[in-house]
Amino acid sequence: MSSIKMFEKPLGMRDTFPDIYEKLELIRSTGRQLLHTRGYEFIKTPSVEYYDTVGKASAISDARLFKLVDSQGNTLVLRPDMTTPIARVATSKLLKEKIPQRLAYFANVFRAQQREGGRPAEFDQMGIELIGDNSVFADAEVIMTAIDLVKGFNITDFKVTIGHAGVLSRILKDYTESEEQALHLNDLLVQRNFVGFEEAVLAFDLPKTKSDALLAYIEEAIRLPSIEAIEKYVRKNDALEYMRSLAKILDAAGYDEYIAFDFTLSSHMSYYTGMLFEVFASGSGFPLGNGGRYDGLLQQFGSQVGATGFGLRVDRVFEAMPKIEIVTDSVLVLFASERFSEALQTVKLLREQGKQVTFQSYEGIENIEALKAHYKIVNEFKSREA
Amino acid sequence: MSSIKMFEKPLGMRDTFPDIYEKLELIRSTGRQLLHTRGYEFIKTPSVEYYDTVGKASAISDARLFKLVDSQGNTLVLRPDMTTPIARVATSKLLKEKIPQRLAYFANVFRAQQREGGRPAEFDQMGIELIGDNSVFADAEVIMTAIDLVKGFNITDFKVTIGHAGVLSRILKDYTESEEQALHLNDLLVQRNFVGFEEAVLAFDLPKTKSDALLAYIEEAIRLPSIEAIEKYVRKNDALEYMRSLAKILDAAGYDEYIAFDFTLSSHMSYYTGMLFEVFASGSGFPLGNGGRYDGLLQQFGSQVGATGFGLRVDRVFEAMPKIEIVTDSVLVLFASERFSEALQTVKLLREQGKQVTFQSYEGIENIEALKAHYKIVNEFKSREA
Repeated sequence: MSSIKMFEKPLGMRDTFPDIYEKLELIRSTGRQLLHTRGYEFIKTPSVEYYDTVGKASAISDARLFKLVDSQGNTLVLRPDMTTPIARVATSKLLKEKIPQRLAYFANVFRAQQREGGRPAEFDQMGIELIGDNSVFADAEVIMTAIDLVKGFNITDFKVTIGHAGVLSRILKDYTESEEQALHLNDLLVQRNFVGFEEAVLAFDLPKTKSDALLAYIEEAIRLPSIEAIEKYVRKNDALEYMRSLAKILDAAGYDEYIAFDFTLSSHMSYYTGMLFEVFASGSGFPLGNGGRYDGLLQQFGSQVGATGFGLRVDRVFEAMPKIEIVTDSVLVLFASERFSEALQTVKLLREQGKQVTFQSYEGIENIEALKAHYKIVNEFKSREA
Repeated sequence: MSSIKMFEKPLGMRDTFPDIYEKLELIRSTGRQLLHTRGYEFIKTPSVEYYDTVGKASAISDARLFKLVDSQGNTLVLRPDMTTPIARVATSKLLKEKIPQRLAYFANVFRAQQREGGRPAEFDQMGIELIGDNSVFADAEVIMTAIDLVKGFNITDFKVTIGHAGVLSRILKDYTESEEQALHLNDLLVQRNFVGFEEAVLAFDLPKTKSDALLAYIEEAIRLPSIEAIEKYVRKNDALEYMRSLAKILDAAGYDEYIAFDFTLSSHMSYYTGMLFEVFASGSGFPLGNGGRYDGLLQQFGSQVGATGFGLRVDRVFEAMPKIEIVTDSVLVLFASERFSEALQTVKLLREQGKQVTFQSYEGIENIEALKAHYKIVNEFKSREA
């Protein structure tokens, strides 16, 4: 413990300074406005939840959870995502009032980090959950909203890749010999480790028809990101029919230029049951966000309704956006003690005009010139005695 | 652990539903705008800090801290206030760029609770810190900003009571016989327990001149909330001179109607060294917020500069405000599958007009009439086949 220095912060924890704060605030208000006009209602949940309710139901692995113990001996967690707390709130209250629920959030979530200089341990997410509508139109709405949101942040060069948890798990089940093999291959796909995937398939010593099919499937799914490319590998076609309807809707709405189908897509969010997607900005190694249908999660809270939604990482949106320049006409009004009242009148007038005015006595500062250098306009009420 | 039910939240943790969320958002944007025009810059700090840095320096008692342990065995805390993290950030970075610093925050803070139905364990605070200006004008600015903020929330019937940590501690030291007695009396004043104070003074068996002086001081300070009322009890008068200057400035700026001096005022925030104040709305048992000068806190982070500031509790501001009515023209557009494109055109037009439009397929809902009842305007694109 003695190694902690005065100014240090816990692993992955960060300060947000004023210039960045204002830009993040712009993202927040732009996103809020867009989601609001689409009928999404914002809610907030506590930062701290019971491990037994939200912690266990979350798709985030146990090692990434911040855990604490309350005075009654219960284990608590800092919320690792917003989907699970919203599922709790919707099931306990909101769905009794209205179905479907269109809910939105802008919230910080927590993921424990093991190394300095790694990923942030606390970051903001903005997203929606559409709960209680099992139609393909709900999934289409979620994808379209994600696209409109990204476009609303002036990000133009991006792609949404859409897969299906059911199709992929069916393939992995049909062409392997055990659940362990299927799970292992799935984990490799979550990491987008295609080399590892190929090696694993060969190491499993599967019947040649199966290993050939698996390798061909992955190759075709990547080379031709379309529904047609993988049709012949899928035995049961309900899910593919669903994806065809989804594609048709997105096409009719004019979103086809932003989307591609990728049936190798798998997520570390283990609760996805149907279509799932990722949003990638050109040139970025990490997705801006992801989403999908999770029809099983609400069952853990005793509700039978399905749900679909997405979340964007605000820090990654910020990185992918064109540079924002916030121009403020900052004014510094300096005053000698005896001219306080007079200077205050000026300050009030300037503020009423919407100007950002700092009102500062000479008495309170040592280096007047250094301070003046930070402001565009300086207005001085010097002592008359001088 | 098995006693935790599916929907439960940890002690003192609360959900914020859409109607309240929107109203709190109004408070947030109103406050942000006001503080921005005064030259305050918003910053954000992590929710989690090291106990050894921010936890120990905070004025919040150890029993109220949410503690957790990281993978390296360090004790972490959920931030119990914003003043201490901001002192850390200012000292480590910002004060090297500009002095003074005018910083603002809107942030959630955490205080562990012991009982169900008690106070919230997580709540939002909005406030400012003016760091590096030791003049009386800085203290005046902080008080005036607090008053303008409360007025900005349309709260009209409120009072700011101003005391001085130095004056009170001097009195308690001069008229008792030990540090323990002085601390005990101070604790009673923090609780505003005047009956307990009188009983304690009598129980101490002090010389009659001292006990008489203490009781008379408290009585006069309460009966006549002014600087003059307590002058004769204070041996060293620098602090009172300071308070006279402060009163003169607030008077000249036209804030006298909102203020009263109360030299019995003491705070559970133990870091206050000079003037301190509380904001009370008429009819409320709890202060809307409080503030004061804390010239010692930054020394704990290695800086010699003084600071002053305040924080308002957003939940109490909300309670004290006149009722806010947010009127939204919510529109529901319902569509049959085959009329999706046509309906979407209408939706786009309505949204461009700024309307809040929910776009819902008939296919996705069971009880159409129940859903329609939630919207002011319903626009239907029924199936042509029907």
